[in-house]
Amino acid sequence: MAISAWKTYNERVTKLIDTLSDEQLIAETAPGRNTGIYLFGHLIAISDGIIPILGFGERLYPELDKAFVDSPDKSGLEMPTINKLKEYWNNVNTKLADHISQMPADEWFTRHNKVSEADFANEPHRNKLNIIINRTNHMSYHLGQMVYLEKK
Amino acid sequence: MAISAWKTYNERVTKLIDTLSDEQLIAETAPGRNTGIYLFGHLIAISDGIIPILGFGERLYPELDKAFVDSPDKSGLEMPTINKLKEYWNNVNTKLADHISQMPADEWFTRHNKVSEADFANEPHRNKLNIIINRTNHMSYHLGQMVYLEKK
Repeated sequence: MAISAWKTYNERVTKLIDTLSDEQLIAETAPGRNTGIYLFGHLIAISDGIIPILGFGERLYPELDKAFVDSPDKSGLEMPTINKLKEYWNNVNTKLADHISQMPADEWFTRHNKVSEADFANEPHRNKLNIIINRTNHMSYHLGQMVYLEKK
Repeated sequence: MAISAWKTYNERVTKLIDTLSDEQLIAETAPGRNTGIYLFGHLIAISDGIIPILGFGERLYPELDKAFVDSPDKSGLEMPTINKLKEYWNNVNTKLADHISQMPADEWFTRHNKVSEADFANEPHRNKLNIIINRTNHMSYHLGQMVYLEKK
């Protein structure tokens, strides 16, 4: 169910991105608020960050963190083009989907790589599935903002 | 984990509502978009709707659906005052929290009341926990919009 919700929100973001023009994507979601391209890059970086946390290998685009996670929007840092970001989004999602589909059910309840074995013993909810649950809520939070890029 | 995420987002909404002035709450989240009070009423109505779906009894405020679910914002329909809505929000959350805390773990995987027994046999993911997962994502989606009511 949690994986299914993750997929649903990924598809909703993809669908929204595909319907927005480049002009709409570079616009602010609301006056003075984050732009669409910043939030899109932010979601890619956060999803990319899931890869090592769940033990799926190395991140594909760790360089995105600088402009999209460690810095706020309008930092002046260079951003990839929208086309590049769309490519990154698809690559990250394909990699995650491949690994997720092969993951045995009980492994979801094992420790993720950002929690120590000692802490996990005391906090067994800090497992792999919990990462997916939290990241889905994070994605839906920003999706709610990104839909404001659509024409009224 | 899903219940914990539900609680976290409920608390985030409560905290936001408590920090906003009435003027901020009646304002639009972005130009031409839903107002804070509409989204708040909408979240209350949707949470209230969970009560019968999970078998926790009758809805407390079914009358909210007319203005906050069946109608878009600015419908001209009368809305309760902000103070009343805050009271409703707390009452709905208290009722849900009480029942949730008493729910045996396996009951989360049983059929919810909006799916028939026949459909549930084919779609066992349509269980009570799935309602919580979906409603949490719905809440975070609108929370992402409601934070735009805060001063920049």
